[in-house]
Amino acid sequence: MGLLVQKYGGTSVQTIERIKQVAEKIRRAKVAGRDLVVVVSAMAGETNRLLSLAHEISEIPDEREKDVLLASGEQVAVALLSLALKELGQPARSLLGHQVRIETDNAYGKACIRNIDSTKILQSLKAGEVVVVAGFQGVDEDDNITTLGRGGSDTSAVALAAFLNADACEIYTDVEGVFTADPGICTDAKKLARISYEEMIELASSGSKVLEIRSVEFAKKFSVPVHVRSTFVDVEGTWLVKEDASMDDVLVSGVSCDKNEAKLTLLRVPDRPGLAAQVFGPIADAHIVVDMIIQNASDDGTTDLTFTVPKADHKKALAIVEKTLPAVNAQGVKVDTDIAKVSVVGVGMRTHAGVAAKMFEVLGREGINIEMISTSEIKISVVIDAKYTELAMRVLHDAFIGNQGNV
Amino acid sequence: MGLLVQKYGGTSVQTIERIKQVAEKIRRAKVAGRDLVVVVSAMAGETNRLLSLAHEISEIPDEREKDVLLASGEQVAVALLSLALKELGQPARSLLGHQVRIETDNAYGKACIRNIDSTKILQSLKAGEVVVVAGFQGVDEDDNITTLGRGGSDTSAVALAAFLNADACEIYTDVEGVFTADPGICTDAKKLARISYEEMIELASSGSKVLEIRSVEFAKKFSVPVHVRSTFVDVEGTWLVKEDASMDDVLVSGVSCDKNEAKLTLLRVPDRPGLAAQVFGPIADAHIVVDMIIQNASDDGTTDLTFTVPKADHKKALAIVEKTLPAVNAQGVKVDTDIAKVSVVGVGMRTHAGVAAKMFEVLGREGINIEMISTSEIKISVVIDAKYTELAMRVLHDAFIGNQGNV
Repeated sequence: MGLLVQKYGGTSVQTIERIKQVAEKIRRAKVAGRDLVVVVSAMAGETNRLLSLAHEISEIPDEREKDVLLASGEQVAVALLSLALKELGQPARSLLGHQVRIETDNAYGKACIRNIDSTKILQSLKAGEVVVVAGFQGVDEDDNITTLGRGGSDTSAVALAAFLNADACEIYTDVEGVFTADPGICTDAKKLARISYEEMIELASSGSKVLEIRSVEFAKKFSVPVHVRSTFVDVEGTWLVKEDASMDDVLVSGVSCDKNEAKLTLLRVPDRPGLAAQVFGPIADAHIVVDMIIQNASDDGTTDLTFTVPKADHKKALAIVEKTLPAVNAQGVKVDTDIAKVSVVGVGMRTHAGVAAKMFEVLGREGINIEMISTSEIKISVVIDAKYTELAMRVLHDAFIGNQGNV
Repeated sequence: MGLLVQKYGGTSVQTIERIKQVAEKIRRAKVAGRDLVVVVSAMAGETNRLLSLAHEISEIPDEREKDVLLASGEQVAVALLSLALKELGQPARSLLGHQVRIETDNAYGKACIRNIDSTKILQSLKAGEVVVVAGFQGVDEDDNITTLGRGGSDTSAVALAAFLNADACEIYTDVEGVFTADPGICTDAKKLARISYEEMIELASSGSKVLEIRSVEFAKKFSVPVHVRSTFVDVEGTWLVKEDASMDDVLVSGVSCDKNEAKLTLLRVPDRPGLAAQVFGPIADAHIVVDMIIQNASDDGTTDLTFTVPKADHKKALAIVEKTLPAVNAQGVKVDTDIAKVSVVGVGMRTHAGVAAKMFEVLGREGINIEMISTSEIKISVVIDAKYTELAMRVLHDAFIGNQGNV
């Protein structure tokens, strides 16, 4: 049998007891005949512990040194898991980012993987060892330590599967797979057996926290079959695969929500060409990611310009916009942090009309006002008052999924 | 002014508060015009915390993975200290063992430094940065992470000073320097302004814990001036230097003790050539270090063969000796863990006779029985009953040092 890449998240290695359980799980897979490369995150809580040490020293810690600090978390985890495997009699070898040589660009804290040298991994596999690779970390061409950002171990695992041409990448986590909605909100949410890369990307970008979006983009680019499943419950999870014809039958695969955005509105701005550039240029320069934008021109030649940014950045964005106000001649700016983005996602939308109309109707029936709308080929997102989030999720899930799509 | 290597031990970086103090100290030295390479140990307690995690998994953890685990401690420390320096506006850069490229052999847990590449350090110094190097760690030629053993950061610092041809190596620690005896035992112990490498080696091997013995050997080999001083009190400490003529005037530079040995005696062994090899061969094979050996032949052709080993190894040594008993025809074996080794050290002994006689006389006057004696050119060690340790230290210190050598 071929090569499998497995990834275990922080909660899977949170305690020594769990590390031992994971080691036993890995040993069984190895005994069953698979070659195994295992990617591990830092023990849950460790990254935050290290970050808070850094913040005791500096409000905005230097990016290079922060990466050196954080990378130590995965180093501890790979060493302990390798020790646990050897204790079970299973030959194993830990490899850090610089040892594998996972080469990235030098964007500290959010580096992108450029290349993975497979030499040492293949040597080690040939020697019958389970190779335990530190997730989340790499080195730039000058051997500086870099990290891939939150959830980066998912990306490490998928990238390793791609570069090693593995049969599949198994992402072990504390949920059983990808669900049609957050089961904490929609009690009748169902686990999906399969989901297309595109749908998963849209879900990840609209609030689902199961997988980091860059890892899914990587999987899509290299067509890596990804299996998201539970570390603790031994059942099939959700497979991320290429879109195929059968998927078109399902109108909506999932409903998601995101409460981490804030909305800014520039009031009654005289509408003229170049306005958007004037407003969004300085925001982009400050590395603030703008998600949705709408602009409504009124008869009097002015317009209200509304957009959303991550809630954590809204004060910075407000300060920037306030400086722009005189130049664009706006009457003022209004901030609303009490909003939620609710999205429905499904490749079936490509071939079926009417999903948007039905979504608006379902929300309208509950008296939920839609403040902003944004659509892609396979997703419709609306911004609503945050207090209606759970209600909106439930009625949309009922309408599109719970009752087989009948309203 | 030239280059200074400074080393800060675990207690100097035990808390964020102390790391900030150390950063301020470094910044001042830099402002005073020195080029600085700073070597840091793991925060005090961290190495033991990591070790206990490993021991929760395995009684005898795999050596390679244990080194990967432990090396993370210094990684955290260099990152935090570099952050603290940058927060003070002092450019700084952390470098790990593999980044400097501190190349060692592959004896995990007790690796020896073979070579240090100075390229990156010199680049960084040229850019005006303080270079913060992780102590205790290196890589073998295949990029496996190795550690240098307990106290290895001292060795890292001295080796860096040697390879970089630094003006001096400052070892910052929680004591003010090297004392004529442990001030906790001899209240009138004096701080030495200077001590020769040879004396320091003898003191380190006979129980003084101020410096790791390998670091002193390294300093001697490359004639690195080493200044042992306090992190917390700003006074001159003790300089380790080459022996010079003026040192001969001092008969005894220091008195030390070591309670970490155990004594084994093979009783009434028929004395014949090859006996010692038969007894000590298997012990050496088990990597147990034998310190003192004495053998007294009696008239009946048998001999009592006595030797000391580290207390931690005495059970293993006993098991080995018991297997050898029939072959050497010994009557039995006796173990004594309740012993102490007390030593007087001084280069003056080379040119002055009578130190041993005076030592025995002083101990005899107190009724302290001498069980074993071992001498080198500049040291006399005796093994005594452990309960007399402090008494022996005090009377010897009084006799040789406290009263200017007058009894």
